[in-house]
Order: sequence, then C-alpha cells, then structure tokens
Amino acid sequence: MPSATAPDADARIRGLMDSSAKAIREKDLDALMRHYAPDVVTFDLMVPLQVKGAAAYRKNFESWFGSVKGPIDYEVLELTISQGDELALCHYLARVRSTRTTGEKNDYRVRVTSGCRESEGRWKIVHEHVSIPLTMENMRAALAAQP
Amino acid sequence: MPSATAPDADARIRGLMDSSAKAIREKDLDALMRHYAPDVVTFDLMVPLQVKGAAAYRKNFESWFGSVKGPIDYEVLELTISQGDELALCHYLARVRSTRTTGEKNDYRVRVTSGCRESEGRWKIVHEHVSIPLTMENMRAALAAQP
Repeated sequence: MPSATAPDADARIRGLMDSSAKAIREKDLDALMRHYAPDVVTFDLMVPLQVKGAAAYRKNFESWFGSVKGPIDYEVLELTISQGDELALCHYLARVRSTRTTGEKNDYRVRVTSGCRESEGRWKIVHEHVSIPLTMENMRAALAAQP
Repeated sequence: MPSATAPDADARIRGLMDSSAKAIREKDLDALMRHYAPDVVTFDLMVPLQVKGAAAYRKNFESWFGSVKGPIDYEVLELTISQGDELALCHYLARVRSTRTTGEKNDYRVRVTSGCRESEGRWKIVHEHVSIPLTMENMRAALAAQP
C-alpha cells in the first residue's frame, strides 16, 4: 500500500509530468531540463541505444526543438503513476503533432516511461524510455541498421 | 535513502531479472509469466502501441518463441536497479542472438525497462517497455506505418 504521504507525492509526480509536457510544448529547454537528475540514463526515440547524463539528453531535445517550426502539440494520454515512498514509475502515450522547419507535418504517438526519485525534497526523472513500436518490416530495417 | 530492507529487496529484484532472462533463454512461457502482475501494461518491441494484461503479453512471447529454432541467447547488459520500499525500477540492454525457424540468424540489442511492485511478499513486473531506437530513415517508415 502507498505510504501516508502518497497522495501528496502523487500530486507532485503529476505536477512534474504536467510541467515537463508544458516545457516540451513551449520548447523551453531550461524549464524541461530542471526535471532531470544529472545522472539520468535515457533510452531515447532515436539512436544511439542509450544516452547517459542530462547534458547529453538536453542535446537531443535541442536538436528536436530546432527541427520544428513553432510550438509542439504534445498531448499526454493514459498517464499511469505507481507511487512508492521515494520512487515513482510513470508511463503514458504521447500524441505529438508538429510542423517541421521543412514544412512537413507530423502526427504520431510515442510511448514514454519515466522513473522518478525523490532527493532532497525534489522529485526528478532518473530514467526515461521513449519509443515507437516496430512493424515487421521496420524491424528488419532497424536490425540492419544496428552496428 | 533506501530503507533498512533494501539490500534484501535488491537481491530479490536481481533474482527476478535473472529468472526472467533464464526463462526467455529456455523459452519457458510458464516460468516467465509467473513474474508478471495480471494487470501489467507493456510497451513491447513490435506493434501495437501497448498491450494490457499478462494474458495478452504472454501471446507476444509465445509468438516470439515460436519463431525461433532452439534456445534464445539472451544476455543482460548494464542492469541498473533503483530500489524503493515497495517499488523498483530496472533498466538494461539485452543482446539477443537466435536462429529463426526460417534459418535466418539474428543478433541485435534491445533496451528494456521493467517496473516492479511488491504485493503479498512477492515482487512482480507491473510495467515493461522494450524497444529498439530508430534511425532517421526508420523513423519515417515507423511514422508512415502508424494508423
């Protein structure tokens, strides 16, 4: 069972997820990166397999934000939070709609898992996994692309 | 800080991950599925976006195991465990080597995130996310494949 502080902690984790999504929509790198622990390990949507540290992960967001014209419509769907006393596990689907700087319009859904840990009274994301599932055809291409 | 029971719990989470990997290597569906909570939500390697419940997830493993000849060489790399008192977060890379029933040999790496919760004295996986990162070319194909 959740501890006595769980409802508070749950609200804080929801706040963290809301604030992250808002920062993505506004492409506000500084506001976004405040939510990540310095040693966060990320399995991001694009290669490579993993990204270690918030500084490296920031570069991924920087590159994404730079490829998009105007705000990003980042809609969080089916957010589920499992809450412990010092660890929380969140997962959700995000519908992402944007216009690339090339003019191309995108509308897709990704799966996001975020692990959060409390340290010195603040919850931060310590692990994040973002992906799109593969079709059999894409699987072959993804495997062929691996070193 | 981890609670007083953390070293014990950490060993149990490692045991759970070891036992899951062994069951995958031996393609032992019953042994594998004992580690999942009935209401586990999974973001699996292949479409669809999400799979709800252990019974549905079992079908994915069944299909995978059926497509492979002999055992699966499933090697867990860089296992990291974050431990709370009733919730644990694991992430690792898995190197997968197998021979398909078609004779085709595979050798690839996936990223795995597993969230575990203790219930009635047993740790079980309540959320799992498995993926391969996309290259820019695969990203286009994956987006085109979304409904």
